[in-house]
Amino acid sequence: MTQLNRRHLLSAAALAGAAGALAPLVGTTPALAAAPPVGKQAAGWYRYKIGDMEVTVVTDGARPGPLADNFVANAKKEDVNKALEAAFMEKDKVTIPFNPVVVNTGGKLIAIDTGLGAAVNAQSKGAMGQYHTNLTAAGLDAKNVDMVIISHFHGDHIGGLINAEGKPAFANAEILVPSAEWAYWTDEGNASRAPEGLKGNFALVKKVFDAHGNKVTKYEGGKELAPGITSMSTFGHTPGHTSHVLSSGKSTVMLQADVTNVPYLFARHPGWHAVFDMDGKMAEETRRKLYDQLAADRMMVQAYHYPFPSVAHVEKDGNGYRTTPAPWSPSI
Amino acid sequence: MTQLNRRHLLSAAALAGAAGALAPLVGTTPALAAAPPVGKQAAGWYRYKIGDMEVTVVTDGARPGPLADNFVANAKKEDVNKALEAAFMEKDKVTIPFNPVVVNTGGKLIAIDTGLGAAVNAQSKGAMGQYHTNLTAAGLDAKNVDMVIISHFHGDHIGGLINAEGKPAFANAEILVPSAEWAYWTDEGNASRAPEGLKGNFALVKKVFDAHGNKVTKYEGGKELAPGITSMSTFGHTPGHTSHVLSSGKSTVMLQADVTNVPYLFARHPGWHAVFDMDGKMAEETRRKLYDQLAADRMMVQAYHYPFPSVAHVEKDGNGYRTTPAPWSPSI
Repeated sequence: MTQLNRRHLLSAAALAGAAGALAPLVGTTPALAAAPPVGKQAAGWYRYKIGDMEVTVVTDGARPGPLADNFVANAKKEDVNKALEAAFMEKDKVTIPFNPVVVNTGGKLIAIDTGLGAAVNAQSKGAMGQYHTNLTAAGLDAKNVDMVIISHFHGDHIGGLINAEGKPAFANAEILVPSAEWAYWTDEGNASRAPEGLKGNFALVKKVFDAHGNKVTKYEGGKELAPGITSMSTFGHTPGHTSHVLSSGKSTVMLQADVTNVPYLFARHPGWHAVFDMDGKMAEETRRKLYDQLAADRMMVQAYHYPFPSVAHVEKDGNGYRTTPAPWSPSI
Repeated sequence: MTQLNRRHLLSAAALAGAAGALAPLVGTTPALAAAPPVGKQAAGWYRYKIGDMEVTVVTDGARPGPLADNFVANAKKEDVNKALEAAFMEKDKVTIPFNPVVVNTGGKLIAIDTGLGAAVNAQSKGAMGQYHTNLTAAGLDAKNVDMVIISHFHGDHIGGLINAEGKPAFANAEILVPSAEWAYWTDEGNASRAPEGLKGNFALVKKVFDAHGNKVTKYEGGKELAPGITSMSTFGHTPGHTSHVLSSGKSTVMLQADVTNVPYLFARHPGWHAVFDMDGKMAEETRRKLYDQLAADRMMVQAYHYPFPSVAHVEKDGNGYRTTPAPWSPSI
């Protein structure tokens, strides 16, 4: 009875391809005035519980772009293209999503990283820097945020700390930053010796924290920053790059920040060094250790550069790791 | 420099677990009045383009439930539990998502399947039967739908054809149904011989189509139902179960309907027969043929019972298939 076969499928596709020239075979009721395409994507936020904590992933958008020759510092472009193909991605292109989270611990509302900010939002015509718009769509108010925890000082994590006027975007929040990150980026010697590609980031760090009168609370790894939120030093990507463990009741999730960039390249190939990794070798060591642990403990990971909503599990597979996105729950 | 090690991670988690008893080490600024948890999930819709067509996935929610002993008719429960564990799912539980789509072809607005409907929405307190709410959230109006294409007559596909008053929910739409499906479910002999478990579905079919004065347009496989939408008979799950190919420009997606139920059980184990498959053997043949094709052609699949937004690619892996969800695009 089943009409399905390969020839049939291809001819069906061909039929559809010639659609412009063919009248539909059925469905000849006169069409209503055609509804126009809506042309608008769903607001990018997603919510889940970790025990008593409410976690909201608030996307900042994604950066589509050509695959730079040096995107993976220590791999050939043809091998990167093979990895893209294996992940059903387009060749010679790479899209990097940005996914900060906000945690309501019950007692405090805490933002962890903040997206690229208003300037990039304007430049990119809304493709990036969506964080504050999506925050509002998610029913959250930046004025109610008690604490902002920063994982590291790259622009896609700190840009959203200031608004379009260059003022603090979280007017009432305490700003927590990794001590080692603060030490590195505020050192004038480091700033003056910075390679050309990092000068813009040094300038942004200065701009963002000057706007806050440099009033920050520095934190170390292995500390509980708020009930259920514990820091973990995962240096390498930047000198003070830090991840965070959320834990409540029987549930735990690892907020890995940038331990990997997109998973189909850097979890699949943990030995690859992204152009953004400031110490590629240390970043790789950190990545392998953390991913071995995530796999052994079957711990859920929330990853800044995984596709939204960027929650997944990790398992070992050959020389790398395979990630399985957690299924979207349509209710909370 | 990296403080990360296994002992450390576990102690960090332990620290976090003891949160109730510990004061935070930093972040001691007096808390604002705590913002209450929002407690609301994002509206479940997602939009992408297939050439000139605008496709909107409109979730109907998901059914959480215990794993019934006969959920997989021809596998042991312990093997099903192993598959759940391999997919990082909870043991002895299975959650089935429902994901209809709406296609704007440019000329027509076409709904393909309709969710469980208003009665189930009320019974489940909003966990299921979300379709019409999410349709509105997606900027679509059921009154503007020109055509509803039904894949098969199970309640989770036809229930949304009527509203809470039992009237047509798409007031101006032509309703297209597979000829073989119509023949089976409207046959009074079949209805009278139906096993207990199917009687409710026969009654629902009668109720839904009576509400439309039985005014439907029957269609066969291999026909272009509207420009760029071609039917393909994929019998087995039900006697007239039908899939649909969307094609525009260089893009194609296979709307598989129920060729598989949840992918981590039935794509991973294509030989397993879901309790819902009315002819398990034929459904398996159909499934293997279609999935071999999807894998060979690297064709994208949109699947009713995959986790939202239920768009993926398929590849062969051992005796089964592995599915890779398409990355969420935060812009259209």
